[in-house]
Amino acid sequence: MDEVIDALEQALADTGSVAVTPRGGFALENERTGVLEWMPAIRPGRTATVKTVAYNPENPQRHRLPTIMACTAVHDSRTGALTALLDATFTTALRTGAASAVATRRLARVGSAVVGLVGCGAQAVSQLHALSRVLAVRRVLAYDTDPAVLSSFPARTAFSGLPVEPCDLPTLEAAADVICTATSAPVGAPPVLRGDPDRLRPGAHINAVGSDLPGKTELPLALLRAAVVCPDYLPQAAVEGECQQLSGEEIGPSLAELVAGEAGEQLRDRLTVFDSTGFALEDQVVTEVVLAHARRLGAGSPLPLFTGTSDPRNPYWLSEPDAELPAPDPAPPAALAPVR
Amino acid sequence: MDEVIDALEQALADTGSVAVTPRGGFALENERTGVLEWMPAIRPGRTATVKTVAYNPENPQRHRLPTIMACTAVHDSRTGALTALLDATFTTALRTGAASAVATRRLARVGSAVVGLVGCGAQAVSQLHALSRVLAVRRVLAYDTDPAVLSSFPARTAFSGLPVEPCDLPTLEAAADVICTATSAPVGAPPVLRGDPDRLRPGAHINAVGSDLPGKTELPLALLRAAVVCPDYLPQAAVEGECQQLSGEEIGPSLAELVAGEAGEQLRDRLTVFDSTGFALEDQVVTEVVLAHARRLGAGSPLPLFTGTSDPRNPYWLSEPDAELPAPDPAPPAALAPVR
Repeated sequence: MDEVIDALEQALADTGSVAVTPRGGFALENERTGVLEWMPAIRPGRTATVKTVAYNPENPQRHRLPTIMACTAVHDSRTGALTALLDATFTTALRTGAASAVATRRLARVGSAVVGLVGCGAQAVSQLHALSRVLAVRRVLAYDTDPAVLSSFPARTAFSGLPVEPCDLPTLEAAADVICTATSAPVGAPPVLRGDPDRLRPGAHINAVGSDLPGKTELPLALLRAAVVCPDYLPQAAVEGECQQLSGEEIGPSLAELVAGEAGEQLRDRLTVFDSTGFALEDQVVTEVVLAHARRLGAGSPLPLFTGTSDPRNPYWLSEPDAELPAPDPAPPAALAPVR
Repeated sequence: MDEVIDALEQALADTGSVAVTPRGGFALENERTGVLEWMPAIRPGRTATVKTVAYNPENPQRHRLPTIMACTAVHDSRTGALTALLDATFTTALRTGAASAVATRRLARVGSAVVGLVGCGAQAVSQLHALSRVLAVRRVLAYDTDPAVLSSFPARTAFSGLPVEPCDLPTLEAAADVICTATSAPVGAPPVLRGDPDRLRPGAHINAVGSDLPGKTELPLALLRAAVVCPDYLPQAAVEGECQQLSGEEIGPSLAELVAGEAGEQLRDRLTVFDSTGFALEDQVVTEVVLAHARRLGAGSPLPLFTGTSDPRNPYWLSEPDAELPAPDPAPPAALAPVR
């Protein structure tokens, strides 16, 4: 996590080195909203990554699958050839946590020590993990509308060594220095936090993680208007994030601007919101970090896909009677499952 | 090829059953133009496919790789889970040929028997293959600016049983009933056919396959204006295809409109152009055809990626001391190389 946080800060400080686009997506076939999205990024001289990610809140109950499932294809930035394929369910959680850590490091009041988690699913695990790397956390308050999810949360975050206190929403809002909202609230649902900014701690910082679809937001408008709202990537946040509730002049500096400059220092004692929709730069960064570890560990399996051809101008070369498979590439494509 | 042609016609006749978007892309790092693009399509009740495709004209000479390299990820249309990954270098050639066959079947003059190929790279192989399935081809005329590519073309199409006659461009234009242009002409280069529609055969049909980038076109404007130009998918062809040279009212019926109606019959004796940019519906269709054969043949390898979790709400489940890998899915994701 520390490496992902650091690598993300470096990439954000040099956004000229990477090209991303807002993600695109299709609706999945669900009773509730679900989407399949694609998130491409290219860093010249390094790699191009294309993450495909499904968001389907029916998955845990109906299919025993995570709400967010993803895989990332890694391509050579010169030839375009596929060089690796990673499960990205894990890396998505990791990088979403890291993004909140980067924002929190710049926007939270000095001495912030009480973290409140609203929504205790998979993303809350890595949110807490990431925050514990940039704050001296003393208390963790947790709230979820599903009692089963709430009750399993302490076990899922036991690795952090932090005691988790289940609590009601008013208590959480009144006590937390840093709040993370990471819910699967349906499109058009009411806000998951209450509307009154005065009930929050002075200078509170909120990482709003769950808003990631048109019409899906978590925070009340009055709270957003009372806060300085910092999007991860405005072209996307304006469509899918909390920023869709705001007009352009109501939106504060982006995460890259916070990292590049000193704007965050002036905001520490203000009510601040990090509007985290999750963008392709983050996936590019976490993929490179995880791939480097996988190569070091010798993890991964050869991926028996196209690795060359005896005749690049013959699409049917494999059916020629004298076709010869070219010598294997010294670094063939690899498929990587989560490293145990 | 016959199955792909038929499946593509069926899908085009029922375009309400599939959602596609124009592809997006990034520039690769090349001296010449190169791109990495993503092409998503979803057919509810079936699959969602995301093809990532690199177009890099430096690849054959510099890296001994095809100009067009691609892979297609296949996702469950309900859960979004990855179910298969295919090499798509082969399927891209296959479906691009099939699209020209569908257009040619509707637009070529009755009795068309002379095929002219302008550009004899990988795509020309499957263009000729596909046309040979819908026309009674008697002569094949071939032209390429690269003598080595031209001289290797007969061997690459020997499977078709059709004799290939290398010839110069004026001879080809004057004699061919059906012309396929499939070149890697650079962005902004002059047209690959000459400007005078009167030098073409009456009622000639042209499959313009190479135009697939903003600024990259193959046909002279005078020729396009004298012809009825039918795009594969107008939202994309207007940006990347020959249609970028035309205004809206100069553009004829789309391929789906030709398949759904009788418009093609009235156009058989006109000069016609199929503006083939290649779109995600075609990739969806060819992927399903090839996957069905692969499953029937037992081809493919298990793909050691994410197939489940003991706890969908714990992104770190694999690091728990008592983590148990869930029982393997009866139909795990598969990686498919071209079937020999």
